[in-house]
Amino acid sequence: MTGSDLTHQLRSAVSSQAYNGLIDSVLPTLINCVSDIAKSLRASHHVSRAGSANAFGDDQLNVDVLAENSIRSAISRCPFIAVASSEEDPVERNVQTQESSAGNIPEEQYTVGFDPLDGSSIIAPNWTVGTIIGVWQGKTALGQLPASKLVAAVLGVYGPRTAAIVALRVPGSEPVCLELGIGEDGFRDAEIIQSAVRLSESSSKARYFAPANLRAAADDEKYMSIITHYVQSKYTLRYSGGLVPDIFHALVKGHGIYISPVTSSSKAKLRRLYELFPLALVVECAGGTAIDPADGTNILERPLEDLNDTAGLICGTTKEVEFVKKVLFNQSS
Amino acid sequence: MTGSDLTHQLRSAVSSQAYNGLIDSVLPTLINCVSDIAKSLRASHHVSRAGSANAFGDDQLNVDVLAENSIRSAISRCPFIAVASSEEDPVERNVQTQESSAGNIPEEQYTVGFDPLDGSSIIAPNWTVGTIIGVWQGKTALGQLPASKLVAAVLGVYGPRTAAIVALRVPGSEPVCLELGIGEDGFRDAEIIQSAVRLSESSSKARYFAPANLRAAADDEKYMSIITHYVQSKYTLRYSGGLVPDIFHALVKGHGIYISPVTSSSKAKLRRLYELFPLALVVECAGGTAIDPADGTNILERPLEDLNDTAGLICGTTKEVEFVKKVLFNQSS
Repeated sequence: MTGSDLTHQLRSAVSSQAYNGLIDSVLPTLINCVSDIAKSLRASHHVSRAGSANAFGDDQLNVDVLAENSIRSAISRCPFIAVASSEEDPVERNVQTQESSAGNIPEEQYTVGFDPLDGSSIIAPNWTVGTIIGVWQGKTALGQLPASKLVAAVLGVYGPRTAAIVALRVPGSEPVCLELGIGEDGFRDAEIIQSAVRLSESSSKARYFAPANLRAAADDEKYMSIITHYVQSKYTLRYSGGLVPDIFHALVKGHGIYISPVTSSSKAKLRRLYELFPLALVVECAGGTAIDPADGTNILERPLEDLNDTAGLICGTTKEVEFVKKVLFNQSS
Repeated sequence: MTGSDLTHQLRSAVSSQAYNGLIDSVLPTLINCVSDIAKSLRASHHVSRAGSANAFGDDQLNVDVLAENSIRSAISRCPFIAVASSEEDPVERNVQTQESSAGNIPEEQYTVGFDPLDGSSIIAPNWTVGTIIGVWQGKTALGQLPASKLVAAVLGVYGPRTAAIVALRVPGSEPVCLELGIGEDGFRDAEIIQSAVRLSESSSKARYFAPANLRAAADDEKYMSIITHYVQSKYTLRYSGGLVPDIFHALVKGHGIYISPVTSSSKAKLRRLYELFPLALVVECAGGTAIDPADGTNILERPLEDLNDTAGLICGTTKEVEFVKKVLFNQSS
């Protein structure tokens, strides 16, 4: 199987011709980015600070800069991507120069918001890390309802091998969630590993939990009681501290619950545009649920007010998310 | 820096000429294995069962078989390695055929015991996994005291990049623990990333804990109280479920505590020869401590009775291990 099989698969899932640019150009471009970033990481034995902090005050690593540059360079050559912003540079900017577009602007226009390399704290110990990219219809993500305007997401997963998740949900078609194997040639030799990734309700399989910011449980009775529930119920702990590997684990195993709570002592710190929205789209396309722990609403049902908006996250198998919601909001059913 | 720098570094740490075969041939051979296994993993997008179970009843994956074969083939070309056994084939066998040795047997003779690919459960979700290799002086590991006869250990760490840990402790020389970056050419282009890996006592840095088999805490008050201590003391949770990435995390961060307890409901399941001994040597060479949770003795201070011996593990920063020991054995100080 190759990139053309992937195009075929996506084309057959989307009846409308209105998304051909997305399927034939935007997604292949982003898959190539995943392959390029994998190569940069493989060659980066020394992980060092780049000497600057990004807009969120995180220390920037040399590999963050490599990944950011790799994506910026690739999207500038895709005429359907009009606007982009990223965690490293959270300002929406036009991607195409006047020269490159030369009056030849396609009707399909997309905005991308991305986190080029998520998981800074686990890069030095060589744990699996990832890239998170969301693709929005139109020329901005600001003020848009993610549930309708976020049409695709790509996750790059850099571990012993390189994998990717592609989620696609366009009006009028069923959502799609694919797992890909990514080789040296990016899109050209991308292999479909799973054509319908599903978060299942089956209780016969092993059950997994990933409790982010567990320190917050020290000051929060409800979070502590949720953790105790998993231990008592003999769920398996898997928590890398990287959003992409933690969510990818659930997707591959077919079950999981990820909790990054917001408590009195721990603020919401995940970026809605660069992290939460694309991850939530992936989870929903796989049949799962992603909610905001502050109020229990679906992550994708509140428009972005500011490019720097942050929130917490509870996501995974729908039944598991419902359980957490009940404990947090004292719902009786 | 290259493989020759590494040889130079190891030679200068070991005054005796009696270990030249270990330094010049055995360790380079094993580092080449790490590079080869990394390449196999990178190309293995489909993770599948090999259709057999190994000697411990674990399902064997296609990548387990690739890694086993890679090491078996490499060591057969190293004349100093006389005997080998592995988790996939736990029988000590002669490595050199009569033909290959042709009456030309070197004085230095070593036995290797290895787990070719540790972390089966996290291979499908593409999390970092590893290889564990121990090198023993002489022609068997059976009945030998690990503290004196286990002279070297190599860990391969397969993540976004390929890394390795080399620990060396021979009589008459100070122990050494190095972190290496491993490229496409194995030993030839291996880079020294850290020449003295240390598990430090500093309390100013972030503190990390990795609680294996957390389900056991449901039935074991002491284990539960240790977990609660870390949450209340705001330690950072990092637990991948892979021995190599979990220990490597501590080594790179310079702090950590890993606990795989033995309780009434959960049996000791880590292999002493193929997993625990090499990991314990690495931890001790980095200035840390590794003990058996059954009785609090040092992992390396009890000889191997059977190739299939198993135990639990508590290891990491010495002060942290002492704390766990106190709780488990009700020691007052």
